[in-house]
Amino acid sequence: MLPLSFEAIVDLALSEDLASGDVTTESCIAPDAKAVAHAVARKPMVACGGAVFARIFEKIDPRVSFEAHVEEGASVEWGARLWSVRGSARSILMGERTALNFVQRMCGTATISRTYVSALHPGSRTRIIDTRKTTPGMRALERYAVRCGGAHNHRDNLGSAVLIKDNHIEAAGSISAAIDRAKQHAPHTTKIECEVDTLEGLDEAIAAGADIVLLDNMDTATVKEGVARAKGRVLLEASGGITLERVRELSEAGVDLISVGALTHSAPSADIGLDFE
Amino acid sequence: MLPLSFEAIVDLALSEDLASGDVTTESCIAPDAKAVAHAVARKPMVACGGAVFARIFEKIDPRVSFEAHVEEGASVEWGARLWSVRGSARSILMGERTALNFVQRMCGTATISRTYVSALHPGSRTRIIDTRKTTPGMRALERYAVRCGGAHNHRDNLGSAVLIKDNHIEAAGSISAAIDRAKQHAPHTTKIECEVDTLEGLDEAIAAGADIVLLDNMDTATVKEGVARAKGRVLLEASGGITLERVRELSEAGVDLISVGALTHSAPSADIGLDFE
Amino acid sequence: MLPLSFEAIVDLALSEDLASGDVTTESCIAPDAKAVAHAVARKPMVACGGAVFARIFEKIDPRVSFEAHVEEGASVEWGARLWSVRGSARSILMGERTALNFVQRMCGTATISRTYVSALHPGSRTRIIDTRKTTPGMRALERYAVRCGGAHNHRDNLGSAVLIKDNHIEAAGSISAAIDRAKQHAPHTTKIECEVDTLEGLDEAIAAGADIVLLDNMDTATVKEGVARAKGRVLLEASGGITLERVRELSEAGVDLISVGALTHSAPSADIGLDFE
Amino acid sequence: MLPLSFEAIVDLALSEDLASGDVTTESCIAPDAKAVAHAVARKPMVACGGAVFARIFEKIDPRVSFEAHVEEGASVEWGARLWSVRGSARSILMGERTALNFVQRMCGTATISRTYVSALHPGSRTRIIDTRKTTPGMRALERYAVRCGGAHNHRDNLGSAVLIKDNHIEAAGSISAAIDRAKQHAPHTTKIECEVDTLEGLDEAIAAGADIVLLDNMDTATVKEGVARAKGRVLLEASGGITLERVRELSEAGVDLISVGALTHSAPSADIGLDFE
Amino acid sequence: MLPLSFEAIVDLALSEDLASGDVTTESCIAPDAKAVAHAVARKPMVACGGAVFARIFEKIDPRVSFEAHVEEGASVEWGARLWSVRGSARSILMGERTALNFVQRMCGTATISRTYVSALHPGSRTRIIDTRKTTPGMRALERYAVRCGGAHNHRDNLGSAVLIKDNHIEAAGSISAAIDRAKQHAPHTTKIECEVDTLEGLDEAIAAGADIVLLDNMDTATVKEGVARAKGRVLLEASGGITLERVRELSEAGVDLISVGALTHSAPSADIGLDFE
Amino acid sequence: MLPLSFEAIVDLALSEDLASGDVTTESCIAPDAKAVAHAVARKPMVACGGAVFARIFEKIDPRVSFEAHVEEGASVEWGARLWSVRGSARSILMGERTALNFVQRMCGTATISRTYVSALHPGSRTRIIDTRKTTPGMRALERYAVRCGGAHNHRDNLGSAVLIKDNHIEAAGSISAAIDRAKQHAPHTTKIECEVDTLEGLDEAIAAGADIVLLDNMDTATVKEGVARAKGRVLLEASGGITLERVRELSEAGVDLISVGALTHSAPSADIGLDFE
Repeated sequence: MLPLSFEAIVDLALSEDLASGDVTTESCIAPDAKAVAHAVARKPMVACGGAVFARIFEKIDPRVSFEAHVEEGASVEWGARLWSVRGSARSILMGERTALNFVQRMCGTATISRTYVSALHPGSRTRIIDTRKTTPGMRALERYAVRCGGAHNHRDNLGSAVLIKDNHIEAAGSISAAIDRAKQHAPHTTKIECEVDTLEGLDEAIAAGADIVLLDNMDTATVKEGVARAKGRVLLEASGGITLERVRELSEAGVDLISVGALTHSAPSADIGLDFE
Repeated sequence: MLPLSFEAIVDLALSEDLASGDVTTESCIAPDAKAVAHAVARKPMVACGGAVFARIFEKIDPRVSFEAHVEEGASVEWGARLWSVRGSARSILMGERTALNFVQRMCGTATISRTYVSALHPGSRTRIIDTRKTTPGMRALERYAVRCGGAHNHRDNLGSAVLIKDNHIEAAGSISAAIDRAKQHAPHTTKIECEVDTLEGLDEAIAAGADIVLLDNMDTATVKEGVARAKGRVLLEASGGITLERVRELSEAGVDLISVGALTHSAPSADIGLDFE
Repeated sequence: MLPLSFEAIVDLALSEDLASGDVTTESCIAPDAKAVAHAVARKPMVACGGAVFARIFEKIDPRVSFEAHVEEGASVEWGARLWSVRGSARSILMGERTALNFVQRMCGTATISRTYVSALHPGSRTRIIDTRKTTPGMRALERYAVRCGGAHNHRDNLGSAVLIKDNHIEAAGSISAAIDRAKQHAPHTTKIECEVDTLEGLDEAIAAGADIVLLDNMDTATVKEGVARAKGRVLLEASGGITLERVRELSEAGVDLISVGALTHSAPSADIGLDFE
Repeated sequence: MLPLSFEAIVDLALSEDLASGDVTTESCIAPDAKAVAHAVARKPMVACGGAVFARIFEKIDPRVSFEAHVEEGASVEWGARLWSVRGSARSILMGERTALNFVQRMCGTATISRTYVSALHPGSRTRIIDTRKTTPGMRALERYAVRCGGAHNHRDNLGSAVLIKDNHIEAAGSISAAIDRAKQHAPHTTKIECEVDTLEGLDEAIAAGADIVLLDNMDTATVKEGVARAKGRVLLEASGGITLERVRELSEAGVDLISVGALTHSAPSADIGLDFE
Repeated sequence: MLPLSFEAIVDLALSEDLASGDVTTESCIAPDAKAVAHAVARKPMVACGGAVFARIFEKIDPRVSFEAHVEEGASVEWGARLWSVRGSARSILMGERTALNFVQRMCGTATISRTYVSALHPGSRTRIIDTRKTTPGMRALERYAVRCGGAHNHRDNLGSAVLIKDNHIEAAGSISAAIDRAKQHAPHTTKIECEVDTLEGLDEAIAAGADIVLLDNMDTATVKEGVARAKGRVLLEASGGITLERVRELSEAGVDLISVGALTHSAPSADIGLDFE
Repeated sequence: MLPLSFEAIVDLALSEDLASGDVTTESCIAPDAKAVAHAVARKPMVACGGAVFARIFEKIDPRVSFEAHVEEGASVEWGARLWSVRGSARSILMGERTALNFVQRMCGTATISRTYVSALHPGSRTRIIDTRKTTPGMRALERYAVRCGGAHNHRDNLGSAVLIKDNHIEAAGSISAAIDRAKQHAPHTTKIECEVDTLEGLDEAIAAGADIVLLDNMDTATVKEGVARAKGRVLLEASGGITLERVRELSEAGVDLISVGALTHSAPSADIGLDFE
């Protein structure tokens, strides 16, 4: 994780909470008081976000030192010590809430990602992937959390790859026309992905030279038929209404990718506390 | 909602998704194509965030026009049309995901807030309140969403009010000492709130002149006893492990405030689609 | 003082003066020349702003070292050495003016604040408080300077506390209606302050449950009468046309708070020089 | 005045006061209430800053309309109406304090500038000029206010012109050496100004080819002698301890420029109120 | 072109030139003077950048109106009128240089891009593509200019696609190992491109499943042999030391892509003047 | 070079390339792999930009160490090692392209500047100077590069000095009127430069008290005549269509300054590679 990929959202979050100081801490805590505090998992989870946690305290006070007790992406049990900070008690108290707000979301996303990955059938090569349904300002962090959980990323943003949806198809006139236009214009480095909602659409997309086809909201039987028709000529992505239950049957059906908006838009916050020694 | 309270996070979110353009839309959609699109509730929810929705499209293209079909805070049914945008098809497609990412979170928070408010006993004057467990960068928007849902806000940030927690008490030496220091230093406009985890703590906080006492993780019986002891001399806030089930009994117990971190840290994303005419 | 509370204004000030370098210094001073320079009080004053002084030179050149010779808030005599910097002569010369521009204002505000505090009658518990009439961009620094001078802060900004003024009263219909609405909407952590210009207004505000009443532009006799009527049920703030002369009589009159716009809007710049060894 | 020269400080000031909204106004004022408000001079002053005043309300709400009743730089009497805004009552109340904080400083600087200019002997060609002792973030606005008051600007910043001071002379070895180096390195568009504290220094600076010589803290008799020696070969700037009383005698002595730090570092805030219709 | 993709660099450029106003224009041009000015091609060129040109004047003064006389990407002759602005003479003079600095670079890049495209053999399907050797801050604008000239874009940035270079290969151990790792980790939407400097490398990359192979600094004969070996199983990109002369022979050799750093790092500035009516 | 003069453009460039990480490097390079890399001149050039080169890697990873092997402004031969970085292989690979994009432009400008300076006749006191035709966002860096090459800077921006051009003259009514107005309004620290296109214009400008006259697009014979007429009373700047060939004859003609837009708008990128040990 490059700090420059989360600098802006960290600054924004610190400013929200601390731009006017901390009137309670400044009242009650001596300027030279020292403290050691440990981020502790209150439930089992996937650890994720140590660099962000460290950076928040460093921004408040460069003399606060940081130590990580777990590797990024590690599955930890109830009570596990994740990270520690040591330094000015004021600085640690001031950063506590902001730091937890970040890592609770990141660990939450990493944890749900691993849950989905674990639901694949054993030995599966199917990828669980995220979507662009990320929290505003948190995209780089959430994509990273998804990877920490063992899932994979879809395209980063609207400029980094092609994904043709129904409105593009309608505007272009047909699936083939849309794919053709995208091939003409897009950088040669991006594959061409096209969303379809029927198997006829799949056939047309394959014929037009799509690299990836997104099967939108199809039941598992239809997906299986799609896999049979595609014969490996394109990657197939299943999307829409993906539950943990469906992950296994979709992976068994042989789909290459299963995209899950819930990894980022609805991951429950992981329960992490900051315990002071 | 003042635009200046969400400008920074909107800019960040747009930059994440659109800084390099939209290679698919630029390939498939004619520059002069027009479109009308409607944000539609795919489930019952509390509407919230029209101004943000509008601002995102306006930032992409000032000529996109916006119309709201519901009042902020309105409860809407499945299928309700929330807001519409009209203008360049390219501009609307480019803003779609970012706009939905905001309002799905905001409506989600407004909706869960209303759910908690509705769980209060009828006629209750107890307030459901939020916490500082907000999404990084989204604090102003989530506090607004909480109000749209009929709940109330706790303090905005560490500089705007006093909330004495266990570490402050420990550092100051006692509850009374901490309250006394806060009274000395804090602006006269803030009430002094103090967190306690025993009824003895409550007694001491009242004696020391606290205005509000946060009863941390107490069972309902203890809370009732606390209400009896306080005799209205302080506001009482119940906090910690608040479920919908407990909301009713706590409000019946006569507590003034029930703070719920889940309003902002774990609100499920509201299901909203953008339908093109 | 958290650096993040003054980073933006420091960056802006440095950019104003140094974005195109320092053509004189670059011409005349060797890149490897070293210097030691001392900020010296040219008049008696209250010291304030060491962290900002240090930060400015650190931003120009992280290798410049800083030493403080006085505590923040200390009253110093003519000729007192306040702070020293040591390092590249170029870096120190480049930061000199910007650093002085900050601390001259901050010490000026701290000094005038102490002057007002000293004008209270001996043993007084009345607070001298600031207002929102601060210098654009300097609010956090000026509020800090006020505290260094021994005075106190009023609310930080429009979002952090309630202060009902004449226009709010007129719009709401009456003092009681305005107070009632504010109580309904505002966070429970803020007290409700209401400005009145008659004693009838005071009575109404007390009856409506205000926590603080601002007595606007009343003469001392009327203020005394107000104190008598309030009987300690609300905090009373005297405001408007406060001179040093009136501070004593108002504090003797028993008012709790005296707000003085001049602490921040018209504090004379403190005379500080930077002497090179 | 180009908006881009004050955009940053305006954004900062609005953020300080309004980033969390205005809890009082949102409680008491209906969203659709309209208002008209007039900025009124509570004392005689020089009007300055209409564009900034307008921009602040426009940033809060683009639909607030603005009207100027006076020209920039006009001398106005007690009670004069300066500018009006018309639109949402909420928007106007929210911007009131920030807008006044700017224009009170700007009118204050313009007014004191005019006072100094008026103290010149009749028919004088001497310029009253400002210094770099400006308020952090406000340099462009204060330089503009100085011009509105009829005074002139010194160099804008450290990169825009050469001003050799004692430390530069000491480092270069002599006045002549410093001037020579500056001539070698600086753009041909800048004059070379050199500060001296003796008449021998003046002679040396002239001989070395300075364009402007700053006479630092000299009494009027010495300044007169300096004027005689210079014989118009350089511009002479008097600086240090300039009071209104000395302005006349220095201008009579024939100095070209009198620089006054107080124009910007200690101008009293102009008394302006915002009256609602 | 989305304004948000060039807002930051436009703001930076305007700030460089105009943060302290325009002392000449403010001296000589009346505030209410009007002007019309036309951007005129002083040599044949490809037109590009009208939206940026317009935006610069709009930022200075929203009342300046803009008109485009040519389509983006049009080839124009000597003397062609490209764009016109109409409004305040001051505003137009203030924006002139900044606006020209942008469009001269953009038209320069579009023009050289077209020159390279025109050097392809007739009927060629080979793409001329850009690289990441763009001007700092101008990437989105230069990529757009490349497209205006009829060439194509390579990957946008390090996060948007995979390009394995010698250091990656060395670190991974072999071409196959590097390709394999990239396939494991990268989003499914990106093709895998690998740079090789021998035909053995090409064979290995194809065998490992690369989608694109960059032939680094190979002579045309070797490239031809590479095309024969690849048999269309991968896209082939020729790179390194590409001159106009080599473009034709490389396209005849059947390579799919020819990348040319000079499109962006060394495009001569297009000669455009701003003529006032 | 003050970092604050290039911080903004460095941040922008890093964000363009690295905001979404480096998918290739993250796939292929171990997090703990170390590397040493040397920037090497692939052609003779003037070295320039070490501080920027260092800063880019430091921003990505503060633990990357930097070493300079040449002085800024040194002429180096083919193969010369300019600068080295040592640290995390990932960090160095991620910064490589951005760092080179800066220094290739800076060395290119320094190199072409030296070429122009070398074309002056031996012993000449004529200055080669730059213009405001700089790359957006790069002005401070390019002006610095010009100085590294031995040339000089013209005015920094529109606010830092006066340069009267044809539109100003036309608006003011005459050369004398424009010069007069500029003298009235501009700071005393700026010289007054006026552009003329005839020798009559030159005469008028001298008579009106210009300090510098820009001879626009005059042939060498006319410039010579201008030098004769000016008799050293003003500085003369030749501008327009300056080639290396004309530099010598113009300097022999005795002109003081020769301004060359090509130093910044069309300097070829210097060929620098980053070699890994």
